[in-house]
Amino acid sequence: MRDSLDRLEQTIKDRRTADPGSSYVAKLTARGRAKIAQKVGEEAVELVIAAIADDKAEAVKEGADLLFHLTVLLADMGLSLDDIRAELDRREGVSGLAEKASRPKE
Amino acid sequence: MRDSLDRLEQTIKDRRTADPGSSYVAKLTARGRAKIAQKVGEEAVELVIAAIADDKAEAVKEGADLLFHLTVLLADMGLSLDDIRAELDRREGVSGLAEKASRPKE
Amino acid sequence: MRDSLDRLEQTIKDRRTADPGSSYVAKLTARGRAKIAQKVGEEAVELVIAAIADDKAEAVKEGADLLFHLTVLLADMGLSLDDIRAELDRREGVSGLAEKASRPKE
Amino acid sequence: MRDSLDRLEQTIKDRRTADPGSSYVAKLTARGRAKIAQKVGEEAVELVIAAIADDKAEAVKEGADLLFHLTVLLADMGLSLDDIRAELDRREGVSGLAEKASRPKE
Repeated sequence: MRDSLDRLEQTIKDRRTADPGSSYVAKLTARGRAKIAQKVGEEAVELVIAAIADDKAEAVKEGADLLFHLTVLLADMGLSLDDIRAELDRREGVSGLAEKASRPKE
Repeated sequence: MRDSLDRLEQTIKDRRTADPGSSYVAKLTARGRAKIAQKVGEEAVELVIAAIADDKAEAVKEGADLLFHLTVLLADMGLSLDDIRAELDRREGVSGLAEKASRPKE
Repeated sequence: MRDSLDRLEQTIKDRRTADPGSSYVAKLTARGRAKIAQKVGEEAVELVIAAIADDKAEAVKEGADLLFHLTVLLADMGLSLDDIRAELDRREGVSGLAEKASRPKE
Repeated sequence: MRDSLDRLEQTIKDRRTADPGSSYVAKLTARGRAKIAQKVGEEAVELVIAAIADDKAEAVKEGADLLFHLTVLLADMGLSLDDIRAELDRREGVSGLAEKASRPKE
């Protein structure tokens, strides 16, 4: 049985080239990279707000929206969730997430 | 064999109550919900920038950072990636993602 | 002659309690603090995208949208642009803007 | 007497080409457009969080940080606060902010 996220990703890949009139994924993809990225930013802001308000039901919805649009964005860049998984595995291998802490960020 | 994201989530859950001096997850968790949410917002902004610049390597890193901090945030709210998966499955069941398109957003 | 930003702020204050059916400010204010804050976040994301794309005309529009919604948010918190100006003056007084650089941020 | 925002803008313009070792503005400018834009996004997220938490003192600080980095970003694009003021005046002229409400956004 496949993972929910893999099914989501496959659905997104299948619909990218569908009719923009019948598919949200196709419509958003047709609007271009900037619009897809904008949605990722917007959903993150909405998740932040739900988290501060401690609204669990809303956080689940916004978290799902964020993962959905992240996957659309990755597909638009020729990337996949497996690329993210490989990066996360690589970091864990380096030093059990300690690498994350030591990564220069600003 | 478990999924990379599940392993990440288990590691995060294990480290939330570790020594903040030795664990990034414990340190961030100790700083509170607002700081965790802030990191989710910041990583999303960095992913947006990598996407517009079409920098695939950077997008993978920022996408991993975003998923990492999303998982820390969910754990802080008593939620998990399975809650997100269930929401994504529910939407697909409703109408194959069409629900997403019809959901009032603004 | 008054400054454009002061006029904007006065207009916003006047319209907060107007009919939501005829005024965008009144409608947004009626939706509550979270929706106003969400708009500030969204406009910032759009400005970021315009900046990375080096689209000057779009950056001016998004910058205006951002200042507009920032002013609506300040008004909703009982704050004003003068509070921001006083904070900026205070910092400049402290050490030319060096204070900004030394302020702990993360 | 000049406006606080104009003084801020002049200070920023003066320091853009200063020694990055002694000026935050010069250092940030040297890091490039993406880093400046990233800061705008981050400060917006922090302001959103302060607003939802109804923390007025923090909102003033984050609002000042946001305006500061917005001005650095505008300068980096060869734009100024006067360009934003002109856009706000133009909208008010069109229909007293009604233009904003009718502008297609998504």
